[in-house]
Amino acid sequence: MRPSATAVREAVLAQKSQVAALFDELRAGSLDRSGVGVTRDTFGAGEQFGYRVIERIAHGMGLAIGRDHAANMYITLPGNDRSAPSIMMGSHLDSVANGGNFDGAAGVVAGLVAQETLRRLGITPAMDVTTMAVRAEESVWFEVSYIGSRAAFGQLPDGALEARRVDTGRPLAEHMAECGADIAALRARKAHLDPARIAAWVEVHIEQAPQLVEGGLSFAVGTGVPGNFRYPEIKIIGEWAHVGLPRRFRHDTVLAASDFALGLDEIWKGEDAAGRPMAFTIGRFFTDPAEHALTKVAGEMTLSLDVRAYDTAHLASLEERVIALSGRIEAARGVKVNLGKRTSADVAPSDARVMSELLTSADALGLATRKLASPASHDTATFTVAGVPSCMLFVRNENGSHNPHEAMDVDDFLDAACVLAHWLVQRTAP
Amino acid sequence: MRPSATAVREAVLAQKSQVAALFDELRAGSLDRSGVGVTRDTFGAGEQFGYRVIERIAHGMGLAIGRDHAANMYITLPGNDRSAPSIMMGSHLDSVANGGNFDGAAGVVAGLVAQETLRRLGITPAMDVTTMAVRAEESVWFEVSYIGSRAAFGQLPDGALEARRVDTGRPLAEHMAECGADIAALRARKAHLDPARIAAWVEVHIEQAPQLVEGGLSFAVGTGVPGNFRYPEIKIIGEWAHVGLPRRFRHDTVLAASDFALGLDEIWKGEDAAGRPMAFTIGRFFTDPAEHALTKVAGEMTLSLDVRAYDTAHLASLEERVIALSGRIEAARGVKVNLGKRTSADVAPSDARVMSELLTSADALGLATRKLASPASHDTATFTVAGVPSCMLFVRNENGSHNPHEAMDVDDFLDAACVLAHWLVQRTAP
Repeated sequence: MRPSATAVREAVLAQKSQVAALFDELRAGSLDRSGVGVTRDTFGAGEQFGYRVIERIAHGMGLAIGRDHAANMYITLPGNDRSAPSIMMGSHLDSVANGGNFDGAAGVVAGLVAQETLRRLGITPAMDVTTMAVRAEESVWFEVSYIGSRAAFGQLPDGALEARRVDTGRPLAEHMAECGADIAALRARKAHLDPARIAAWVEVHIEQAPQLVEGGLSFAVGTGVPGNFRYPEIKIIGEWAHVGLPRRFRHDTVLAASDFALGLDEIWKGEDAAGRPMAFTIGRFFTDPAEHALTKVAGEMTLSLDVRAYDTAHLASLEERVIALSGRIEAARGVKVNLGKRTSADVAPSDARVMSELLTSADALGLATRKLASPASHDTATFTVAGVPSCMLFVRNENGSHNPHEAMDVDDFLDAACVLAHWLVQRTAP
Repeated sequence: MRPSATAVREAVLAQKSQVAALFDELRAGSLDRSGVGVTRDTFGAGEQFGYRVIERIAHGMGLAIGRDHAANMYITLPGNDRSAPSIMMGSHLDSVANGGNFDGAAGVVAGLVAQETLRRLGITPAMDVTTMAVRAEESVWFEVSYIGSRAAFGQLPDGALEARRVDTGRPLAEHMAECGADIAALRARKAHLDPARIAAWVEVHIEQAPQLVEGGLSFAVGTGVPGNFRYPEIKIIGEWAHVGLPRRFRHDTVLAASDFALGLDEIWKGEDAAGRPMAFTIGRFFTDPAEHALTKVAGEMTLSLDVRAYDTAHLASLEERVIALSGRIEAARGVKVNLGKRTSADVAPSDARVMSELLTSADALGLATRKLASPASHDTATFTVAGVPSCMLFVRNENGSHNPHEAMDVDDFLDAACVLAHWLVQRTAP
C-alpha cells in the first residue's frame, strides 16, 4: 500500500535540519572574498567544490554514484526493474560569479531529499530513480548554453569545446579535462543519456522573478521553458551629423533605437494585458564609443534583442511584429535597421501528464500552488527538446537570482520537495 | 561719394578667380591621405599651413600683419583715424579631422575679399579694418571651446592650457608654444582685444545645415549664436535583472532612457511647430559595456544632453521641461535620473543694428536673403558675449559640415562677400 500524503510530508520535513546544514555547507565553501556572494565557477574550483560535497552526502545515503564523459554526476537509487525507463530529477551545481547559493543547487538537493524519502518510507522503486547534478548551466562563463545537459545527450554544438572562459581565457575542453571529462568522447558526440530510457525529468529551481512572493505562494508548477529568438547585434544606421542640424534633416539613431525599445514595450504591455506570457529584453544598447560625442547626432546605434515566449506560433507572431516595427521606424526616421545574425531556441512546454501529476500531488498534500510561466532558461529545455516528458517546480525566492541577495526560505523549498517526493512515490511505489 | 552697389558687386566678382585659386590652394595643402577630406589640425601642421598661405596672400595685398600672444593673426588695412574703434571680420583656420575645406577658412577669405574691395574702389577707410584669422575654434582637438578668440580677449578658462590634444596626448600650452604663442602672457590672461575698441565684428561661415539649400537662397543673415545648457553625463539608475523578470517588476533603464529621448523629441516637435528655434542632441547613449549582456535587463544607462536656443528665457523654460520630464520618468519607470555635471553658454544674439545693416546691403545689391537661426557654435559668440556688436553671414553649403563632403559654391560665397563688402563700404567710406 502506498504511504499517505501525510506520511510523505512527515518523511520530507524530518530532513529539514540536514537540508539546512547542506545548504550552509555549500554556501560556506563557495563564498566570495566579499563574504556575501557565492561563486561556483563552471568547470572550476567552485563547481568542483559543489560536486565533492554532494558526492559525500550521496555516498552517506548509500546511493550509487556515476559520472559521464562530460563529468556530470548521476546519483541513483536502483529500482526493481533496472531495465525500465528511469525517473530523473536534478539541476545544475554551478553559479554565476557573485551569485546566490540556491540557483541550481536547490534542484540537486531536492532530488536527494526525494530519494531519501523513498528510503525512509521503505520503498524500493519500480525503476531506477536518479538525481543528476548537471555541469555548466550558467552561460556567462563560456557563453555557451546548457553545456552539461547537452553533452549528456550528445548534442554539444560545434565549436563549444573551443569556447574560452571569460575570465581565464582558456578553452572549455581544457577546463573539462581538468574536471575528469573525456574530451575524445565529447568530440565524438557520445550520448550518455537516451531519451527513450527516461520516463520523466523534474527540475526544482528557485523562481528568478518575484511572482511567487507577490502571489503569496511557496512554489509553482512550471508550464514550460520558453523558446526564444535573438538578434544579438542589431545595427541602426542613420547619419552622423553636426549638432547644428535642424530636426527635420536628422536621421538620429538614438531616437530610432528609442522608438524600437518603446515599440516593443507597447507590444509587451498589450500581451501582458491579454494574458499571453512573453518577455523582451534589450540588454545592450549603445552609440559607438569611438564615434559618439556630446555635439554629434549619432549615426549608428547597436542593440541586442532577446524575445521569449511559451508557444511556437506566439513567438512567430512576435517576430513578425518586431520586423514590422523595424520597417515603420525605417520609414519614420529615415534610417536602416539591420537585424543581423539571428539565433533561436525551441519552445519547451512542460509535459501535460507530469504537470498534472505534480498539481495533483500538491492538492493531495494540501499545498496551495499555481501554474507559472517563468521566462528563464533551464536544463529542462534540453530534456524536453530531446523528447523526455519534463516539468519544473519553482520555489519562491526574494530579490531575484544571479545576485548575492537571492533568498529562498528552507520551508518553501521543503513544500516543493514534498510535492516532488509525493509524485515520485506515486510514480515508483509498486 | 560712395560707390554704388553695382560698383561694389563688380569689384567683388572681379576677384572670383583669385578666390577660387586660394580655396584650391588651401585644399591641396591640407588634404588627408585619403585624398578626400581636409585636416587643418588645431595648433598643428594643418592649421600652420593655413596661416602660411593666408599670410602670403595678405602680404601680397600690402596689408599689415600682426599676431597676438595666442598666435592669432590680424590682417589690417589702416584707417584715416587709427585711434577710432575698428571694424573686424574673420573666422577660424582650423578644421576637424577629415573635414571640409570651407568651415572656417571661408570667413577669413571673405574678410580679405572685403578689404581688397575697398582698395579696388580707392577707399581709405575711416577707421582700421582688420581680418582676424582665429586659432583653434574646433573643440574636437582639445575639447575646449573658442581657444583662439577667448585667449585674444584674455578669457581662456582655467585648465585650458593643460588640456591634451586627443591624438597627440600633448598639452595645449606645448602645441601653442610651437606655433609662436607666449605662454606666460596666456597664463597671465593678457587681453589683446578690447571690446570698447571694436565697432563691429562680422563672421562669414558656411551653414552647417541644409536650410539654405532647401530654401534656395545663397546666403542668410544670422540672428545669433545660440546659448546652451549641457549635461555631459546623465546617469539613469534602475535595477540590473535577469532576463526572466516579468515586465511589471523591471526597472529597465533602456526604456527609461528611450522615454527621455522621445520626450525631448516631442518637445522639439512642438517648439518647431510654434516657430521657436531650438535643438537638442543626445550624442552619447549607452549601457555599461562592462556590465551589459544579451540576457540582462540594463540597470544603468549613460547619456549626454546638449540643448540650445536663441533666447535666455526660452532656454530656461526648456531646462524646466527637461527636469520635469526626468521626474515623470523616475515615477513611471521606478528609476533615478542623475543629471550630473551641468555646463552652459550664454545666448549671443546678433547686434540689431549690424543685422539690419547687412539686410539693407543685401537689399541694395538685389540679393534675396533671410534671417536664419543656425544652431552651431562660432567664435562670434565670444565677441558678442564680450560686448562687441556682432553678426554672421551664413553661406549655402551642401552635405553638412565636419565631413569631407562639405560643398560650398564659390558664387554663393561671393554673394555673401558682396554683402560684407557693401556693408564695409557703408561703415568705413568717408
